[in-house]
Amino acid sequence: MNVSPQREGRLFGVGLGPGDPELLTIKAARVIEAAPVVAFFAKKGAPGKARTIVDRWLGSQCLELPLIYPLTTEIHFHDPAYVEDLRAFYAQAAQTIAAHLSGGRDVALVCEGDPLFYGSFMHIYIRLKDRFEIEVVPGVTGMSGCWSAAKLPMAWGDDIVSVLPGTLEGALLARHLSSSDAAIIIKIGANLAKIRAAIAQAGRLKTAIYVEQGTAKAEKIIPLAEKTDDQAPYFSLVLIPGEGRRP
Amino acid sequence: MNVSPQREGRLFGVGLGPGDPELLTIKAARVIEAAPVVAFFAKKGAPGKARTIVDRWLGSQCLELPLIYPLTTEIHFHDPAYVEDLRAFYAQAAQTIAAHLSGGRDVALVCEGDPLFYGSFMHIYIRLKDRFEIEVVPGVTGMSGCWSAAKLPMAWGDDIVSVLPGTLEGALLARHLSSSDAAIIIKIGANLAKIRAAIAQAGRLKTAIYVEQGTAKAEKIIPLAEKTDDQAPYFSLVLIPGEGRRP
Repeated sequence: MNVSPQREGRLFGVGLGPGDPELLTIKAARVIEAAPVVAFFAKKGAPGKARTIVDRWLGSQCLELPLIYPLTTEIHFHDPAYVEDLRAFYAQAAQTIAAHLSGGRDVALVCEGDPLFYGSFMHIYIRLKDRFEIEVVPGVTGMSGCWSAAKLPMAWGDDIVSVLPGTLEGALLARHLSSSDAAIIIKIGANLAKIRAAIAQAGRLKTAIYVEQGTAKAEKIIPLAEKTDDQAPYFSLVLIPGEGRRP
Repeated sequence: MNVSPQREGRLFGVGLGPGDPELLTIKAARVIEAAPVVAFFAKKGAPGKARTIVDRWLGSQCLELPLIYPLTTEIHFHDPAYVEDLRAFYAQAAQTIAAHLSGGRDVALVCEGDPLFYGSFMHIYIRLKDRFEIEVVPGVTGMSGCWSAAKLPMAWGDDIVSVLPGTLEGALLARHLSSSDAAIIIKIGANLAKIRAAIAQAGRLKTAIYVEQGTAKAEKIIPLAEKTDDQAPYFSLVLIPGEGRRP
């Protein structure tokens, strides 16, 4: 007979939504309040956006577990040394979390947006999913937060919607923009000039909206055609709404 | 001088998330609890999924305003008479809501998922946006609820994600499936056989997951390849996860 002296902890991947702390789900708040360990990704020297969002929900006895990225700059994924650093970082983070789970402590790994949609949680999930019980609490995505702040109906009827990383090459972006009814371009940063050209090439510049810091206090929403510079944070977005059927 | 005897009410488009009442946001719950009028879409003779989700948050003094669709079957959008019925319905619903707003009462129009992502709220929004103050509260989308229930990491790194209505013709579906890294096929219903063929043509059948009633008690999650029949509710989904970079 298998005697287990202690129940293993469960890992929760908890989506925090687009930034406004009121856009957490009720389930997310409940899971975080009850969690003995709350883990979050952060850059060195900064509190971390996830940590800031979650502040009011941390229990008084909760152990905070910051997972500090090895680099603080925008990702240069073509550098093999950087990939190796990142791999080592995720492996180490997974091991740290696993130690708490093995010790019987539940861990809430909190992440901006939705955990399974371009989320760093996924790198921990694939490393631990065969060893521990894991539950995922979905969140409002950053893009939902942005189009709601912009009051932009995004997809109607039979519209095809594409989510396109701005890191892709311009011709590929233009092709997808031409064949989609609605598009969300993510990961803007240094790619804005290229993205703007691809949107113009696809004939979609007239309806493109640029959103920075959606749902946060510093929120900025303007037509892309009226944005005169090419400065943009990595996590800003460009939204091109669908025009599908509307009775 | 303009004397306004009474402040006009505000309209809130409130996303309710994928089905589990705990997946409402804290803001959604607060807005609904405070709303003197809560409006929701429903089919004739059924309580309405939105009304069911929102049950615990209705204030005791709240006026419920059901907006009953003219037809109860799956949408046949090519029938001009149906389009005309639907147009008259949305116009009438907007007028009913406008009467409350003019009377100084805030109205929360609650909708499953996210209000601006294929949501019926948009049909009311475009009819009232120039006359009243409107705020949109984003929600967890049905697709986020489904991939979280399936524990399926959907998009990694530079993945291109497409949202494709299953109502589209098969060749178009197959083309988009071939050029996307990840895909979410919505509006399944009677289209499942065609969708399955398009997925097979694009060589994506092996990783496609079928999800019915995601996050609800009756939730069903199986590989599409193992689903032997072509019966599916209109609001089921097929998920094809991305395989992008993962250090």
